[in-house]
Amino acid sequence: MLETLSEHACFGGVQGFYRHASATIGLPMKFGVYRPPQAAHGPVPVVFYLAGLTCNEETFAIKAHAQATAARLGLMLVTPDTSPRGTGVAGADAAWDFGDGAGFYLDATQAPWAPHWRMGSYVAQELFAFVPQAFAARADRVGLFGHSMGGHGALTLALKHPGQYASVSAIAPIAAPMHAPWGHKAFSGYLGEDRAAWAAHDATELVKAGAKAPPLLVDQGLADKFLAEQLHPHRFEDACRAAGQPLTLRRHDGYDHGYYFIQTVVADHLEHHAQTLRA
Amino acid sequence: MLETLSEHACFGGVQGFYRHASATIGLPMKFGVYRPPQAAHGPVPVVFYLAGLTCNEETFAIKAHAQATAARLGLMLVTPDTSPRGTGVAGADAAWDFGDGAGFYLDATQAPWAPHWRMGSYVAQELFAFVPQAFAARADRVGLFGHSMGGHGALTLALKHPGQYASVSAIAPIAAPMHAPWGHKAFSGYLGEDRAAWAAHDATELVKAGAKAPPLLVDQGLADKFLAEQLHPHRFEDACRAAGQPLTLRRHDGYDHGYYFIQTVVADHLEHHAQTLRA
Repeated sequence: MLETLSEHACFGGVQGFYRHASATIGLPMKFGVYRPPQAAHGPVPVVFYLAGLTCNEETFAIKAHAQATAARLGLMLVTPDTSPRGTGVAGADAAWDFGDGAGFYLDATQAPWAPHWRMGSYVAQELFAFVPQAFAARADRVGLFGHSMGGHGALTLALKHPGQYASVSAIAPIAAPMHAPWGHKAFSGYLGEDRAAWAAHDATELVKAGAKAPPLLVDQGLADKFLAEQLHPHRFEDACRAAGQPLTLRRHDGYDHGYYFIQTVVADHLEHHAQTLRA
Repeated sequence: MLETLSEHACFGGVQGFYRHASATIGLPMKFGVYRPPQAAHGPVPVVFYLAGLTCNEETFAIKAHAQATAARLGLMLVTPDTSPRGTGVAGADAAWDFGDGAGFYLDATQAPWAPHWRMGSYVAQELFAFVPQAFAARADRVGLFGHSMGGHGALTLALKHPGQYASVSAIAPIAAPMHAPWGHKAFSGYLGEDRAAWAAHDATELVKAGAKAPPLLVDQGLADKFLAEQLHPHRFEDACRAAGQPLTLRRHDGYDHGYYFIQTVVADHLEHHAQTLRA
């Protein structure tokens, strides 16, 4: 059951926002879909984008400036929300980096989060299966990327579901969350204190443990105020080099953590995905 | 005196937000500037964008997706706020279509608005003069465009200041405000009940009275929910035809009033400005 919240003509296609009852989350979930003009004539490749802390299903569509390129390349774009909403869990809205707007794209195992905070299964299973049923998207040509917390989500979900995502990239990802305050807070809250459970949701640890992904594109701004403490792309780079995981890590002088950086590189990311998804 | 609120690298240039003490408004005013990469090497042409109701100096930079094209064409973009802020005038925040966020790009003559609501002079005189002093902008190559209330502002300010703006365009402008509820409310509140005073701020009436502007580009979505009651581009079109004012009015099936429409046509608008400003 799909509820249309709004639809807007955009570059010859349609930017829409939708709500459906998620069995995985146990609550209604919103998401955005940009349908390029080509989708009017048949299924097209689709790229999922996972947003960062405090964002929602609208952020990317408004701020990332990706629709022009998606229309040119014939890519559908799907943007999930970043957490369950309206759970009634006490304290869920107390912090900007945990709880509401901060699902970290994993399935929580700890109370009171476990019943609803299941964004890993929601994104990689339920929404992954739902989109090609509800829209003209090719189930066999799916890419995944994201920003910050969503970059962490893109890398980890791709590494945990080999073969599911044909193309993967990330912008300023939390690349080694076991070394980051954001990661400590999220993992201890959602997963408890067993560090072995944390490693299964850390892109750097997954690569060290032998997980593989398609050749990766990662962009990082060097004026990003979160770079030194929270992001650690060098740890991911080292792990990829040691494991033989193909990675193009581009460092950009002067760029910060926000959507003005994302605007600047998003076309390159869609080209990266199109190269594989349209081949 | 220019206060930098934030600056963000963007497409090789800088998207910044600033505040200055406005003598015209009598209060601090914020505005945005996108400096394209070319501005690092010397003054570049500049295009002012006037936003619509409820918007502020950040809206265009976030939602319009114009920076990529501005960087390619070497155009600076300047985005004023849409009204004075923090005036202390009772009731200024009571409505979304009058007062705060709704300055209508004119100088109010009526109490209690007259002391601060002077957006016409602020945009066309003070900020117009200030930008080339504070940034690498060419004072002799200035364009003007806007959306909705800001489209009204762009058309009327250009018609009232012949020769000042070398290139002019509008997206879904309030093109005949004397025939629109938004216009009635703004004009009666800011200007009083003398309809002769209203006509001096109505693009259609100005053209009928003989005012001239550079060849105009106007885009209008046909699924725009405000089209029939508030915008009236056909009245402006008729006036331009009768007066010999060059106008390209493009009507777009399916497009609404929002920024997903603006995204879609903004590159064409910047190309329109660049054609004159870079000649």
